Amino acid sequence: MNKIVVLHSGGLDSSVLLYQLVKEGNDCYPLSIIYGQRHKLEVVFAESISKSLGILERHKVLDLSNIQCLLPSSLTGSSEIPNGHYEDESMKSTVVPNRNMILLSIAAGYAQGIKADSVAYAAHAGDHAIYPDCRPAFISSIRDTIKLGTGWILDEGIELITPYVNFGKDRVVKLGKKYGVPFESTWSCYKGGRYHCGVCGTCVERKEAFKLAQVTDPTIYEE
Amino acid sequence: MNKIVVLHSGGLDSSVLLYQLVKEGNDCYPLSIIYGQRHKLEVVFAESISKSLGILERHKVLDLSNIQCLLPSSLTGSSEIPNGHYEDESMKSTVVPNRNMILLSIAAGYAQGIKADSVAYAAHAGDHAIYPDCRPAFISSIRDTIKLGTGWILDEGIELITPYVNFGKDRVVKLGKKYGVPFESTWSCYKGGRYHCGVCGTCVERKEAFKLAQVTDPTIYEE
Repeated sequence: MNKIVVLHSGGLDSSVLLYQLVKEGNDCYPLSIIYGQRHKLEVVFAESISKSLGILERHKVLDLSNIQCLLPSSLTGSSEIPNGHYEDESMKSTVVPNRNMILLSIAAGYAQGIKADSVAYAAHAGDHAIYPDCRPAFISSIRDTIKLGTGWILDEGIELITPYVNFGKDRVVKLGKKYGVPFESTWSCYKGGRYHCGVCGTCVERKEAFKLAQVTDPTIYEE
Repeated sequence: MNKIVVLHSGGLDSSVLLYQLVKEGNDCYPLSIIYGQRHKLEVVFAESISKSLGILERHKVLDLSNIQCLLPSSLTGSSEIPNGHYEDESMKSTVVPNRNMILLSIAAGYAQGIKADSVAYAAHAGDHAIYPDCRPAFISSIRDTIKLGTGWILDEGIELITPYVNFGKDRVVKLGKKYGVPFESTWSCYKGGRYHCGVCGTCVERKEAFKLAQVTDPTIYEE
């Protein structure tokens, strides 16, 4: 059993990862970081996932909305969210500069403070195309940096766990089904409507993943 | 001439670095990040340094005080600041877990957003003994991570500049004299009194550095 800080956005991937790690018997500390207005809705979903696992009292939410003044991106409200496919050129406006490095460095500091063994992060292969900080080369490098920054000797520092880094999202959906994830309590849409819009990049990717995985999609889409 | 985001705490080292880079003709964007109550005073000094260089309007201050709930440390107010020498065991309570990785990842995201070339950071050799995230091995690793996280190809990403990484603080003081840094407008003390306390780890180190450098120390110490 490991003590693990799990970066948990309330999205599908990190919810499946949290379920898997808890069901495998680990001692998990979910961490949600708000870095822009549009993500406040996701936190409600993240908390409902933690609640369904009985670990809500351990769920930490960190509000870093102030960071918006430094990091312009459509995800933090400075321009319109584009519709279309996740891999389209237009999706690049959804990139928050260096976002994952920021989130992972905070998670690693928190993990060090509570004497956890590792930080888990649900990057998957579908993220590679548009986010430089989701690529395997980046993850391999930041794994070393975290180890060095959080410990005096290499074996002492915080470990970074990214089990889905080479998985397609359909494979993540299949795992979610295996571990009994309540998919209806996860949120993917970049827009903050009452239901998933069904047309933004991440909604399109979500729908495709359920279809490819041949798992029933319980999500209510507006379109 | 390079466009450079300079992590600027208002302390001696980062003030000297900012002076050097501006005087060498670079286009500098100072960034101060507040991560705990005790650092709010430093920001006043940081701003006065930027003002003395005529670049106050470019100085960004990011308030990340919320992070205190995740990162307990005496520097963020969760315990008393110890007196004594910088290298004493007791100084370890001043370590904010993974602090420099957090600050550097935010600075790199900001640099990417404003299309800067690099981030400059004034780690010096005296920091190595107690802060794992000031060591050359850490800095070399995070340099790669930042490059990979902020660009699609290695030459495109943000460069990390750490010219003082192998300098003693006395050498930094000498450079500061060379570039005309108003040392009285820099702040080192971990405590937030009216004057430098003169007995905490960083005050002791500051005094030693001026003495070793044979530069007049204009700092008013309480003791």
